[in-house]
Amino acid sequence: MAFEEMWRDLQPIGRSASSGGYFRQPWTSAESELRAWFLEQARARGLELEMDQLGNVVAWWHPPGLSRRGDAIVTGSHLDSVLDGGAYDGPLGVVSALAAVDLLRERGFEPVRPIGVSVFVEEEGSRFGLACLGSRLATGLTGWARARELRDRDGVWLPDAVEAASLPVEPDNSPAAWLTPERVGTFVELHVEQGRNLVDRGVAIGVASEIWPHGRYRFDFAGEANHAGTTRMEDRRDPMLTYAMTALAANKQARLAGQRATFGRVEVTPNGTNAVPSHVTSWLDARCSSDAALAELVEAIEKQAADRADRDGTSLVVTAESVSAAIAFDPGLAAYLAALGDWPIIPTQAGHDAGILSAAGIPTAMLFVRNPTGVSHSPAEHADMADCLAGVEALAAVLGGLAS
Amino acid sequence: MAFEEMWRDLQPIGRSASSGGYFRQPWTSAESELRAWFLEQARARGLELEMDQLGNVVAWWHPPGLSRRGDAIVTGSHLDSVLDGGAYDGPLGVVSALAAVDLLRERGFEPVRPIGVSVFVEEEGSRFGLACLGSRLATGLTGWARARELRDRDGVWLPDAVEAASLPVEPDNSPAAWLTPERVGTFVELHVEQGRNLVDRGVAIGVASEIWPHGRYRFDFAGEANHAGTTRMEDRRDPMLTYAMTALAANKQARLAGQRATFGRVEVTPNGTNAVPSHVTSWLDARCSSDAALAELVEAIEKQAADRADRDGTSLVVTAESVSAAIAFDPGLAAYLAALGDWPIIPTQAGHDAGILSAAGIPTAMLFVRNPTGVSHSPAEHADMADCLAGVEALAAVLGGLAS
Repeated sequence: MAFEEMWRDLQPIGRSASSGGYFRQPWTSAESELRAWFLEQARARGLELEMDQLGNVVAWWHPPGLSRRGDAIVTGSHLDSVLDGGAYDGPLGVVSALAAVDLLRERGFEPVRPIGVSVFVEEEGSRFGLACLGSRLATGLTGWARARELRDRDGVWLPDAVEAASLPVEPDNSPAAWLTPERVGTFVELHVEQGRNLVDRGVAIGVASEIWPHGRYRFDFAGEANHAGTTRMEDRRDPMLTYAMTALAANKQARLAGQRATFGRVEVTPNGTNAVPSHVTSWLDARCSSDAALAELVEAIEKQAADRADRDGTSLVVTAESVSAAIAFDPGLAAYLAALGDWPIIPTQAGHDAGILSAAGIPTAMLFVRNPTGVSHSPAEHADMADCLAGVEALAAVLGGLAS
Repeated sequence: MAFEEMWRDLQPIGRSASSGGYFRQPWTSAESELRAWFLEQARARGLELEMDQLGNVVAWWHPPGLSRRGDAIVTGSHLDSVLDGGAYDGPLGVVSALAAVDLLRERGFEPVRPIGVSVFVEEEGSRFGLACLGSRLATGLTGWARARELRDRDGVWLPDAVEAASLPVEPDNSPAAWLTPERVGTFVELHVEQGRNLVDRGVAIGVASEIWPHGRYRFDFAGEANHAGTTRMEDRRDPMLTYAMTALAANKQARLAGQRATFGRVEVTPNGTNAVPSHVTSWLDARCSSDAALAELVEAIEKQAADRADRDGTSLVVTAESVSAAIAFDPGLAAYLAALGDWPIIPTQAGHDAGILSAAGIPTAMLFVRNPTGVSHSPAEHADMADCLAGVEALAAVLGGLAS
């Protein structure tokens, strides 16, 4: 079957031989290979390609005799990964969308609305730090003026990274939003579940109700570099201590509040064994069940960090790099989807391009495919093939229902 | 004066324009430039050069009509730095040695024993993780079989790094020890003080009594990578938490015991904002007033770390990368030096090549030059020029006394 063949095609691209995890950062050779694969698949199906200056793509299936209208249905996801990520987060939605189109055509279905299969770039924010960068720009939720100031870990500016990828489109100094409510009537994203709601319920498919509010905050701790051997403990201003206490405080606050807080990325200067550091920078990822709970959690963590900085003789600056409010998906659309297969409606704490399209005013829904361990953003991320194929059937049913 | 000219020569080499600190890692272009400068200085003085396959150098001043004997006096230090280090740690000892030779010659002094000016490579261990690597190999305290297995942060093997530096010597697959008690009768190292003993006493020069025992231990914390948003706090096995608690415990234990413990280097996998890490590796630098106290301190830290790992569902492996026992410098030699200028005899918590030569059985002494803030391993490291010149006079007095 087509799904399994496509899945095999993607398997080796950007995979680490040592960990088995994926490194599919945007505008790298791995991601270029993935995009080329998608364009080839779309062309083989006679779909009409539309690409913007960042590499976001929609492959259109236009009904015969019907030009683009404002009620198009778009479905898709992303092909990039976190650093050392899994195979399913993103690609499952793209491959399932192509397979669902195949299924509908095999069955002789003729859509009355255009159906587009989309691929968004830099969904994970793993290179430029701003999650859903591609869909933010394509919908106009984030402007180019902000995006062009982003730099990756190695100091490469976003426009230079995009240029280096040699996309087959004319460069544009100020790309405009093009996936807006005027063109897109419905967006549906299929995604592997990143949690255990479906396992716990014993079902393969679910429908999303909402995305929790989510923020990324950079914590810059500054102290004084010094010799690790000769500097008396009481003479130190060591930002590593302030950071360490902050990481523990974030975990404790999130546990107490029933929310989520993670420090998963740290950069130390000079990062030498025999030197007390001068600077420690770390990023807080926080997600909560409400906007108020998110603000409260981050404030509590920041307060504990500042108190500890006072005691350590260090300083702290906190910068909110991105804050996304709660996203409630279209309730009518969710109910319609759920009824198609008697699927449960569940929330998610993960950000998705679907959240961006929803925030941009497009009626949006998500389908989740069961993840037997709940593990994601890891080489161990998995979905059984039978569940993936059930996902393709579910998506075909959704598209067929919406486009007839 | 010669010292000030030489000091100016070195100032720009390997200096960061942003921090003002030095990046003089071994077998890099900055270090090659420093070595070339030293060879030129030695040749200009008619000193006879001897270099080993790693780039350790001794520039010899042979008394007229006297060939090499077993009672040579060697003085010197190193030119490499920690990452973002200061200008004085290392170079002060090398430049002062050359300037002291100049002074003795100006005064018509004729040594009865050969005097060698030495430069050792990778004293800081900032690239390959083993401090005093050059002097360890030159004295035979560490064998080539161990050294050749070392890799830097980027995975470069030591032999490849050495080869890339294109040293002007024949490569040797198994370099032999050459700075042994059979050739060297006395070693003297001048160094900027890395602490405030001399400031507190109001004197410019001091003599070392001993080096505290010192160890570097790699702590490998392993957990399970997962999604930072969707993974419930109670389902996580997050090695960042185990690390954070260990860093705080190390600081507390060292304070309580009146010793030194530092976690200044951390590497996180995958180090992404939205991923619970799978691995955190960090290095403990511990220094204590006795071998027993060092063992006790490391054991206490390791125990707290292991207890926390149990609670976090993570695992911990601790590897001692280098452990150096206490070094008591030759007491007679220290007393002789101290008497020359009524200088105080003080301990140090910093490792030095002098400690290695002493451990290899060579009678060894150290001179310290006052550091007004005590800060070291930092761009802020400093010594006043008047104190540096006093250091040159002191070293000339020591060499003159020992070689007459």
